[in-house]
Amino acid sequence: MGDEAGKPNAILSSSSTSDQTLRALKPLRCIVKLGGAAITCKDELESINEENLRSVCAQLRQAMTPCKSSSPAKNLGMDWSRRLGNPPVSTIDEFRNKQALDLDNNFIIVHGAGSFGHFQASRSGVHKGGLNLPLVKAGFVATRISVTSLNLEIVRGLAREGIPSVGISPFACGWSTCQKNIASADASQIIKALKAGFVPILHGDAVLDHLQDCTILSGDVIIRHLAQLLMPEYVVFLTDVLGVYDRPPTDPNAMLLREIEVAEDGSWSIVKPNLPHAKGAVEITIAAHDTTGGMETKISEAAMIAKLGITVYITKAGTDHSLRTLKGEIHSSPDDWLGTVIRSRRISSSK
Amino acid sequence: MGDEAGKPNAILSSSSTSDQTLRALKPLRCIVKLGGAAITCKDELESINEENLRSVCAQLRQAMTPCKSSSPAKNLGMDWSRRLGNPPVSTIDEFRNKQALDLDNNFIIVHGAGSFGHFQASRSGVHKGGLNLPLVKAGFVATRISVTSLNLEIVRGLAREGIPSVGISPFACGWSTCQKNIASADASQIIKALKAGFVPILHGDAVLDHLQDCTILSGDVIIRHLAQLLMPEYVVFLTDVLGVYDRPPTDPNAMLLREIEVAEDGSWSIVKPNLPHAKGAVEITIAAHDTTGGMETKISEAAMIAKLGITVYITKAGTDHSLRTLKGEIHSSPDDWLGTVIRSRRISSSK
Repeated sequence: MGDEAGKPNAILSSSSTSDQTLRALKPLRCIVKLGGAAITCKDELESINEENLRSVCAQLRQAMTPCKSSSPAKNLGMDWSRRLGNPPVSTIDEFRNKQALDLDNNFIIVHGAGSFGHFQASRSGVHKGGLNLPLVKAGFVATRISVTSLNLEIVRGLAREGIPSVGISPFACGWSTCQKNIASADASQIIKALKAGFVPILHGDAVLDHLQDCTILSGDVIIRHLAQLLMPEYVVFLTDVLGVYDRPPTDPNAMLLREIEVAEDGSWSIVKPNLPHAKGAVEITIAAHDTTGGMETKISEAAMIAKLGITVYITKAGTDHSLRTLKGEIHSSPDDWLGTVIRSRRISSSK
Repeated sequence: MGDEAGKPNAILSSSSTSDQTLRALKPLRCIVKLGGAAITCKDELESINEENLRSVCAQLRQAMTPCKSSSPAKNLGMDWSRRLGNPPVSTIDEFRNKQALDLDNNFIIVHGAGSFGHFQASRSGVHKGGLNLPLVKAGFVATRISVTSLNLEIVRGLAREGIPSVGISPFACGWSTCQKNIASADASQIIKALKAGFVPILHGDAVLDHLQDCTILSGDVIIRHLAQLLMPEYVVFLTDVLGVYDRPPTDPNAMLLREIEVAEDGSWSIVKPNLPHAKGAVEITIAAHDTTGGMETKISEAAMIAKLGITVYITKAGTDHSLRTLKGEIHSSPDDWLGTVIRSRRISSSK
């Protein structure tokens, strides 16, 4: 694998993504992870955190609105469902009179599962494979029903904010794994959707695995893969805490790690705050029902993205900190900004 | 295009479906179209015909249950959603004790949109293309939200009957058109899902078009494409009337056409009942809000499938006629069976 930071990985598992398609794409601005913990109520089966979801969608809309825009235009929703009342005839007429959407929406959004899918996956052992077992096959079906229903709600939430969102399921577009690592992940449809001006909305999914029949592909792994392929300007993880702490954030002594640097060999160290001997001191909490690895996966995936030269921001959804981050306004870690920046040491030292 | 009936079409637009994958697949038993008119209330926006959907799902389950099975086993559902009440712990335990699913489920199901998607598509003109227009882009998003929400409900309905269903959106798996004809339609994920023992559930969808940016790809066109590629034993269209009539079925003098034969050149004639000079006398009704062509598309797509040597049955969903058809029990058109059989003349004359 090509490891040189700042350049797309030379060997991609996306077999049918033609270089031509990739070159024709304008630079991707941002990949955003909507953490399952931020958009769902984690302790209640299949329950969306409506307030957080609304706030995240509104902030994404603000981040996509070009600065040059005059006072915010009336928000025209793109979810014309019965559930929202009568057909929006007036909205349709207003769209008819609009010349352009005027959005800088070159984003990809990937969401986790939170309280959707985890129960189904962990009770059936989908992540361990074995589709010959009726329980695993049923769990695969039940997991996909749950995560795709969450995906639909997120697409709807974004569409109501006027963001032209299209749901794309990794399983449906043929992504597969080999012993839980990505084996095939054709991004050509994602690239075509971006080129056509849509915002692709992906999600952690149950997928086929070449060796163990099936597994769970987490949103974090999807983000790393897409970041390697598309080299976005920055990556944002929105979660339910302010960032990465030196111990579980429920601990009153927990300290927010503001800046983490990743070396060429993938090792990482905390540069702010200045904690002597702090490396490796970050405790890792994995919820028992989290089949995709929790914080451990998140930091290691973020470090692998940072190693490519793409800065990763982890911050709390629905705050002023997340809004500034999504807008691309955070470059170092200013004192009035709360979150964790994970960046390549090469980039830090060249400043 | 290879026209010889009974053999897969030589030139397939599914560029990346390897022959190897195709050969490894056991013969496909049936492709079923769930007509939008049969599973939704066509005159009420986004309203499912719950009774019909339940009945269709139960009949599909019966059709997939091997004849050798003893008295019907307890039906273990695969939708473990909160909406259905408490997590089905007992169901999970029963799955754990099950050795095999014992289903002959080598089926593909494709559904139409009915009252989902049509309103959004026709009001915005998605079928006419032009994604630079905000109205069309918004309509594309709104259409996909509507049709994917119907897809999710159908996957759920089938999963509740114990059918291992997986939703696969044509847009998400990269299907596209060129001036409304299929340009690219990679079926490899559909084939992999079948091989893994799942029943793929596709749907009419908004897709990208090479010449006019976007259009609507109808379920009927999807079925023809999959039939050419996978050569199922038979194809069943379930609709809200008994079959094809010689005039609109609301006309009290309308006569059900029982058998239609398709010649090598694609022309077709009615062989039962014996109506002299009947060819071409079939009136065609297209509902004003139907952006994908209604009955005209259906007959012409069915004729193209029949020309390949695959018999097509059009019958009313939720009847004894549809159950017998899904089970594969109808070979000619017996007097106690109501529906329309469309077959290749070559097959009829060789009997």
